[in-house]
Amino acid sequence: VSLENDLLDWLHEHLPTDSRLTVGLGDDAAVLAGRHLNNPVVTTDMITEGVDFLLSEVDPVWVGHKELGVNLSDLAAMAARPVAAFVSLVLPREGFEQLSSLQLAIQLYEGMLPLAERFQVSLAGGDTNTWEGPLAISITVLGETTPQGPLTRSGAQAGDQIFASGQFGGSILGKHLHVEPRIHEALLLHERYTLHAGIDVSDGLALDISRLAEASACGALIDTTSIPISAAACKLSKKDSHSALQHAMGDGEDFELVIAVPPATAEKLCADEPLDIRLTRIGEMIETRGLWQANLDGTRQILPPYGYLH
Amino acid sequence: VSLENDLLDWLHEHLPTDSRLTVGLGDDAAVLAGRHLNNPVVTTDMITEGVDFLLSEVDPVWVGHKELGVNLSDLAAMAARPVAAFVSLVLPREGFEQLSSLQLAIQLYEGMLPLAERFQVSLAGGDTNTWEGPLAISITVLGETTPQGPLTRSGAQAGDQIFASGQFGGSILGKHLHVEPRIHEALLLHERYTLHAGIDVSDGLALDISRLAEASACGALIDTTSIPISAAACKLSKKDSHSALQHAMGDGEDFELVIAVPPATAEKLCADEPLDIRLTRIGEMIETRGLWQANLDGTRQILPPYGYLH
Repeated sequence: VSLENDLLDWLHEHLPTDSRLTVGLGDDAAVLAGRHLNNPVVTTDMITEGVDFLLSEVDPVWVGHKELGVNLSDLAAMAARPVAAFVSLVLPREGFEQLSSLQLAIQLYEGMLPLAERFQVSLAGGDTNTWEGPLAISITVLGETTPQGPLTRSGAQAGDQIFASGQFGGSILGKHLHVEPRIHEALLLHERYTLHAGIDVSDGLALDISRLAEASACGALIDTTSIPISAAACKLSKKDSHSALQHAMGDGEDFELVIAVPPATAEKLCADEPLDIRLTRIGEMIETRGLWQANLDGTRQILPPYGYLH
Repeated sequence: VSLENDLLDWLHEHLPTDSRLTVGLGDDAAVLAGRHLNNPVVTTDMITEGVDFLLSEVDPVWVGHKELGVNLSDLAAMAARPVAAFVSLVLPREGFEQLSSLQLAIQLYEGMLPLAERFQVSLAGGDTNTWEGPLAISITVLGETTPQGPLTRSGAQAGDQIFASGQFGGSILGKHLHVEPRIHEALLLHERYTLHAGIDVSDGLALDISRLAEASACGALIDTTSIPISAAACKLSKKDSHSALQHAMGDGEDFELVIAVPPATAEKLCADEPLDIRLTRIGEMIETRGLWQANLDGTRQILPPYGYLH
């Protein structure tokens, strides 16, 4: 209770005043004042020490940033606008190295605050516990869809063109922590263009495209020569037995958007270049189920939906 | 991923079809279809093996029931109607004793399902992980307030009468697991009567009343002779050095409601007896800050806001 009170004191000092909350931290629940959420969207994610990160290698500030970023990336995949986040922590009772459990909690929140501010997410509630075990963080983010409704994985059709934001591969060299949720990009695209389906790339480009295809009951034909490969993927490929393309297709934790759009929209997207970041056509949806690679001679071959290479 | 898929398969078989979800389990986030949530209310709570329960002593079914129940009790304290719950699990990779991690997850959900059905809460999303550490469960529940708005801790005034539902003390003998969230009772009272403030008793009757008083910037004078003492509290008092009243005031995890109402409402409540369970007048709000005990001779003495006796 004392840890939770100390953390609440810190939060009250450091959180921006938020007119959207009638009842904020400290009551039994948070109330989002006078708000009418349309088609509320909710996503939740938990990360744990030893599996998703090692405190001996990663600054807790970046752990906090990442965990909020991952949740926001899930909302971006739905083209939803984030509203409020709820943070459950279970902290090692003795803290970590020189950090007390309170200092550890504060650093995690310090990582969340700038992201929360940039994306106008209220840090509206949470639960803070200690135990003999390692650190675990669970964040739930509440959002709402725009008048266009939610973007789902299941709306793609054969003939749709597949686009991806940003670049892929080698996230382990930094991007897996420095998550940049593509909220603004998703909202802009969803508002101005006809999008049939979308997903964010968390487990690997190939694996996540195959999930989108499966949810849409069709297949995907990938033009592997067009995949935007990151400098990090090239760097990694020089150190191991995987090619840069394999890293781009399989590494995961890129937190980029993949969308499927009808052909007319594809033309507009290529002409408009509406985003500040790269948006690349990387393939198309086809009737034949599964994930396929287009060969230069016009034939196709099965592409293994690998992921988790990291 | 495979554990999560297996669990999703089980959930798709066992969850009731839910017309309130456009997008349910399996996409990047859940979308609550065509719903306009008014003043969304959100609460989150995490419980951990070794601190809040021991799997060697408690059936995982009851752990699941409890964790959902605790969250629903927080919504009851706000007089909010639950809508959807989101469940993050981190499971020991090897499971527990004869149970695999999947079986453990299923048992936790088996404990949540009946409660979710009774209170019409959609189990709408979640995240399932394994690790080398012990079991931790975090649940976030989304609800909405009724037209009367939220009931908070901070609206009590000097002169308000304090009522409590049910009986107190000795929850460790069973009630701490068999949580009965007072949702229906809170909604009924909030709809028919003027309630100034409310809280649910999770950490101890004395401690939680003192929190309500502090949030309302006044004090509370408790008539300790009127506290409804549970049979479990009496039973415990025979085994240890604490009186049954001390157990009732300090044990916690009763998950009963405490409300503060104006005097005219107090009279009506006593006349109407509107609940199926007991509703007892146990004191009044006063101007002098702090928690006080009324003596028979009309004087008062400080009452320590003890809690966590368990």
